[in-house]
Amino acid sequence: MNKPDRLPATSIFPMGEKIAGDGIANNHFTGTAWLRMLVPDDSTFHCPVGNVTFEPGARNNWHKHPGGQILLVTGGRGYSRDEGKKVRVLHEGDVVKVAPGVKHWHGAAPDSWFSHIAIMPDSEKGDAEWLEPVTDEEYRAIPKK
Amino acid sequence: MNKPDRLPATSIFPMGEKIAGDGIANNHFTGTAWLRMLVPDDSTFHCPVGNVTFEPGARNNWHKHPGGQILLVTGGRGYSRDEGKKVRVLHEGDVVKVAPGVKHWHGAAPDSWFSHIAIMPDSEKGDAEWLEPVTDEEYRAIPKK
Repeated sequence: MNKPDRLPATSIFPMGEKIAGDGIANNHFTGTAWLRMLVPDDSTFHCPVGNVTFEPGARNNWHKHPGGQILLVTGGRGYSRDEGKKVRVLHEGDVVKVAPGVKHWHGAAPDSWFSHIAIMPDSEKGDAEWLEPVTDEEYRAIPKK
Repeated sequence: MNKPDRLPATSIFPMGEKIAGDGIANNHFTGTAWLRMLVPDDSTFHCPVGNVTFEPGARNNWHKHPGGQILLVTGGRGYSRDEGKKVRVLHEGDVVKVAPGVKHWHGAAPDSWFSHIAIMPDSEKGDAEWLEPVTDEEYRAIPKK
């Protein structure tokens, strides 16, 4: 099954394929998430765009983008954190800019679905560098709001 | 007044400021549209992102982007046309890729609001080149669907 039991509030763009979850984590996520590439990486725009949906509690590993990343939040409630900074709580309509090379992660709140569009400018500078998971201890320590 | 009488179906992102209309067209639009820059142009990402909302019948002039343009349709029904190609009818969830330097326009259908996110990759290659309006004759000749 490739659909969650409860759909997120917003589904303008297709959810796409399950990329982690059911206890079978891939290398880059904790919990279950879905990805639909809206614009695949190419040599014309070198600006891939993806629609990412996280189930409650799901988040990606710490990672870096050589060209940076822009997130447009389309639904639910989630988090983003740049290394050394406080967690930012995100809602529909929020915009996150992560500068090139900055170590960061993003994902859902424990009790909410979360969806965002992810834009990766200047992809010709290189692929994302995936790092260690956000531990349960680290994630649970985020203040509830 | 800076708000339309009837709001478009989708308003995840702020509509922003009116950029044309009430008979006072700017140089680049026919009819009334609203623009909110979600990511202003800068030297870090050089990938500005804007939320654009068109009232029924509104459209931008023919124009070109040196770095190309990606449109993510978030609501309503609209059109896009590359020079020499047929009009493409657009609905929520559609994605349009306009290659660098291609002359094109986009806007609402005559009887529907229309909104899209516009991504301009590689803005360091130069600003949009704005050209002539899409005439009423040209616009009215689009087949109704």
